[in-house]
Amino acid sequence: MAKLKLTLVLDSGARIGPGKAALLESIQDTGSISASARSMAMDYKRAWLLVDSLNKAFDTPVVERTTGGAGGGGARLTPFGQDLLSRYQRLQGAVTKLATDDLAAIEQRALPEAGPKV
Amino acid sequence: MAKLKLTLVLDSGARIGPGKAALLESIQDTGSISASARSMAMDYKRAWLLVDSLNKAFDTPVVERTTGGAGGGGARLTPFGQDLLSRYQRLQGAVTKLATDDLAAIEQRALPEAGPKV
Repeated sequence: MAKLKLTLVLDSGARIGPGKAALLESIQDTGSISASARSMAMDYKRAWLLVDSLNKAFDTPVVERTTGGAGGGGARLTPFGQDLLSRYQRLQGAVTKLATDDLAAIEQRALPEAGPKV
Repeated sequence: MAKLKLTLVLDSGARIGPGKAALLESIQDTGSISASARSMAMDYKRAWLLVDSLNKAFDTPVVERTTGGAGGGGARLTPFGQDLLSRYQRLQGAVTKLATDDLAAIEQRALPEAGPKV
């Protein structure tokens, strides 16, 4: 079934799309950037850059380091990060629901293989 | 004000986002791929490739050539192309409306300059 990808584009040009949202979701679940990177088959540096770009896009961090514990520290969403992620998830859910009939109608006419990616 | 970008991703991997939607809108208005390319500051080949990829993604063309007339022929949306564009526009409008409060809340925390693009 066809899907809808949602990307928030801020005035600054910063973007928050499905990739960053999935990373934030995984950090929320795992409490770790490196565990999230592994679970998303992404190298650590890439995950770190995505987190860093989110942190630099706002006047307050989205992800913060945690210290201590057996694992020697990790990462978690700040309250603002949680708010940002839940807004994205809510919009994604609402949009997907709104688009169900359109996506079905469009997919019905789609060929199984797309042409070259442009 | 922050914006929401919508991209339809078909099972085949074919994508229809703001760029292709704007091109279809322009072809609908101008009746010409080359005039549309010019008005979007895009080279003709790129516009043609985008149209071609749309035409190859479905079991029916999205854009067709027109022949005759003073200009020696041009292009227009097929009925399916019109349907596709109007579904996209309707979704984009509905989503933008749905997201107004979220976008305002998120933009309020955004810094004027984004970090490096990742």
